[in-house]
Amino acid sequence: MSQHALNQVFQALADPTRRAVLERLGAGPAAVSELARPFDMALPSFAQHLRVLEDCGLVRSRKVGRVRTVQLVPRPLKEAERWMTEQRALWERRLNQLDAFLLQQKEKN
Amino acid sequence: MSQHALNQVFQALADPTRRAVLERLGAGPAAVSELARPFDMALPSFAQHLRVLEDCGLVRSRKVGRVRTVQLVPRPLKEAERWMTEQRALWERRLNQLDAFLLQQKEKN
Repeated sequence: MSQHALNQVFQALADPTRRAVLERLGAGPAAVSELARPFDMALPSFAQHLRVLEDCGLVRSRKVGRVRTVQLVPRPLKEAERWMTEQRALWERRLNQLDAFLLQQKEKN
Repeated sequence: MSQHALNQVFQALADPTRRAVLERLGAGPAAVSELARPFDMALPSFAQHLRVLEDCGLVRSRKVGRVRTVQLVPRPLKEAERWMTEQRALWERRLNQLDAFLLQQKEKN
């Protein structure tokens, strides 16, 4: 995943409406009107949030007749998660090394 | 972790300079001047990135004499990672259910 793609995904996740939409879509695809219902927001503002999600590839939408249906695309979220998991692995290894070093020092004294 | 805290952490992660700083800090604490060195950026701009990281609790800094040292604080990153992992668990369960359903339909026919 490119730096630019990571920027976009994390930017998309930095908003509670967009996170709530992703949480809802985890349960299955939904029509835009259904997705918008829980939010006290004008439809154009809501559509803008969907556009952000679609631009970074986190969701995909399809219009059939008058109904636009939105579904989750797991891959970008997985790749952003991978960045976080890798970072955690790195610092946990360092902390373990530090622990081992401190223990060694303690045993010496 | 509150919605506001999640907003802030994802916002902080949505920038390649800030991610690179976190990656570097995974290897251990560092002075601001050392952290800034790889970036072709004026120091005030770099300091602004550090402020964003510090405001959302991803790093902590301490000034001793004339040297400010920065260290990683793993917890907010862990909690943001948890949100992502939970989402993934939800949709993977749904996809598994869908698989099972499709298999069942196939066996019926």
